[in-house]
Amino acid sequence: MSDTLRILGVAGSLRHASFNRALLRAAAEVAPDRVAIETFDLAVVPLYNGDVEAGGDPDGVAAFKAAIRAADGVLFACPEYNHGVPGVMKNAVDWASRPPADAALNRKPVGIIGASPGQTGSARGQSQLRQAFEFTNSYCMPQPEILVFRAHEKFDAEGRLIDEPTRKYLGRYVAALAAWIARFRGG
Amino acid sequence: MSDTLRILGVAGSLRHASFNRALLRAAAEVAPDRVAIETFDLAVVPLYNGDVEAGGDPDGVAAFKAAIRAADGVLFACPEYNHGVPGVMKNAVDWASRPPADAALNRKPVGIIGASPGQTGSARGQSQLRQAFEFTNSYCMPQPEILVFRAHEKFDAEGRLIDEPTRKYLGRYVAALAAWIARFRGG
Amino acid sequence: MSDTLRILGVAGSLRHASFNRALLRAAAEVAPDRVAIETFDLAVVPLYNGDVEAGGDPDGVAAFKAAIRAADGVLFACPEYNHGVPGVMKNAVDWASRPPADAALNRKPVGIIGASPGQTGSARGQSQLRQAFEFTNSYCMPQPEILVFRAHEKFDAEGRLIDEPTRKYLGRYVAALAAWIARFRGG
Amino acid sequence: MSDTLRILGVAGSLRHASFNRALLRAAAEVAPDRVAIETFDLAVVPLYNGDVEAGGDPDGVAAFKAAIRAADGVLFACPEYNHGVPGVMKNAVDWASRPPADAALNRKPVGIIGASPGQTGSARGQSQLRQAFEFTNSYCMPQPEILVFRAHEKFDAEGRLIDEPTRKYLGRYVAALAAWIARFRGG
Repeated sequence: MSDTLRILGVAGSLRHASFNRALLRAAAEVAPDRVAIETFDLAVVPLYNGDVEAGGDPDGVAAFKAAIRAADGVLFACPEYNHGVPGVMKNAVDWASRPPADAALNRKPVGIIGASPGQTGSARGQSQLRQAFEFTNSYCMPQPEILVFRAHEKFDAEGRLIDEPTRKYLGRYVAALAAWIARFRGG
Repeated sequence: MSDTLRILGVAGSLRHASFNRALLRAAAEVAPDRVAIETFDLAVVPLYNGDVEAGGDPDGVAAFKAAIRAADGVLFACPEYNHGVPGVMKNAVDWASRPPADAALNRKPVGIIGASPGQTGSARGQSQLRQAFEFTNSYCMPQPEILVFRAHEKFDAEGRLIDEPTRKYLGRYVAALAAWIARFRGG
Repeated sequence: MSDTLRILGVAGSLRHASFNRALLRAAAEVAPDRVAIETFDLAVVPLYNGDVEAGGDPDGVAAFKAAIRAADGVLFACPEYNHGVPGVMKNAVDWASRPPADAALNRKPVGIIGASPGQTGSARGQSQLRQAFEFTNSYCMPQPEILVFRAHEKFDAEGRLIDEPTRKYLGRYVAALAAWIARFRGG
Repeated sequence: MSDTLRILGVAGSLRHASFNRALLRAAAEVAPDRVAIETFDLAVVPLYNGDVEAGGDPDGVAAFKAAIRAADGVLFACPEYNHGVPGVMKNAVDWASRPPADAALNRKPVGIIGASPGQTGSARGQSQLRQAFEFTNSYCMPQPEILVFRAHEKFDAEGRLIDEPTRKYLGRYVAALAAWIARFRGG
């Protein structure tokens, strides 16, 4: 067990200029000392197909599972699409929940944050994602929560989080998540 | 407007022997006269990516949207993965919800059914999917609902629905859905 | 069937100065001609208890059911408490869903609006309430939706809706709900 | 801190012969040594009303909050009404979430179980209740879960849990919950 807490960041949008990707970058910037956030790009995780899985995990899926296992915890940056979790994000969780007896997400501490251009800051997307972690037996931190609403006003054209209150609050969130993850370290 | 009511069937699993695919086939068999259920295979709908979309819909997405527009209504056969809607199914809805101003699902009557090997018959998967249809402004039939639990006991090895009570109930469901769709015909 | 469409307004908060009560009053003010919104106060509906119900509905419950039956549709103004529907509001729906074979809410068109002091405008409260209407077989209008966020900035000290954009949007909402209800009139 | 782990049991139904009350009694019977489950009857908790609260908690509410504070953890036995959490149960949580700065449920470990006469075993009721515990910052055990379906076949006329597999599984559940609660003991 190293001195550095390793958090895997996963964004639920594949768009290059995604606010949720940008939010993960900001989380990495504001993380406390000895907390490292590295991100995994879901573009390599194909649509879940049980017939494909029966022949062995596709490379992208194997890489995703390995990245989860190597991390002390996972931070999901979740958009809201159609009042719920994006298919892209849920699809990755569906893969990582398998096989049930030895799933990468089992007993893994996780956190959820999110941003959206609207008023709700992805609240309903986050709620649906959280329901998945009941089944996967992941330890999902209940509070604090981050709903970055009107995200287009909080990030600049380069995707840098320029809203200071949000930036400070995100720092406190990452510190809280690190403490949550540490609580479960060692099982 | 033809004499036949056209329902598009969409299963949320890509597995060849999927219970939900089989449930759609059974629905087509028990459909009343002048109600036709044709299915669309989501394997051709890629992961949603806003950057890709900006360059034009991929062929599979264009085909999915066209199939929805050509139908009088849509019947979603929804598994439950990890207490929620499968990513594969939600991903297809995410595409079909775009662009918001002229979405294929806007003002479209829809129904949800589902099967699962467990006890809940995909209840939580159906609930999450239903939330999406609030946003897409689709007219989702509230009742009756079909939760095919212990699906492995209800279908034979060829995926034929052999449980007579379920088969009869499915017939009543499809008749109710046809009446629901007809209610909205013509806008 | 009279010329006037009768909508029953129900607020999910018992607090006298509730934003959701105030939102219902504003809805009545902006309603189009020949659309009347009268409100029912849930303070008279006790905690649901099946043993009490077996001896006959308490007076407040009987009054609530009668008010629903007398109306062409119901408009629920729903706060968000603890990421969900207030117990007070769900409790009233639980009574009105009984008995299943002849429930007041069965086949009743309904709409949901909501206000909250926070950013999400009761989004998660509304989502949970909406799930109830699947079971009660009520016809819940999917769109438009109204999430009155930062409600303390939109109402004055007397509980009058003074934010003009919200007021106009509410007028469009009530007109849309009236059209939705009229669509189902006569069954 | 005593040697005995104290769990407060709370049933979401006021009915005397409630399956969920009976499930709590069974949980107390199968609890391991040094784990005590005492129940609190929600009949004394009135409808939430912020105006009443402003004048001080009613006696039943004060007693409920005190019982939560005195316990090491809380076990909620949750029915499903209308695809969601019963109003009676959510109403009690709404009281116990207040005031936000010093809520009885804050940092409290909790578990959810449930029974229903139907097939889903209160799955959707449990899901909605769980969402509340995100906001109250309670530590809700993700797995195992207990969905007692077709409850009328599992309890005898005196409300005793007579289904042996369910009884054994409930014993494992309570042991797991006790371990979960112990994990958070001392904060």
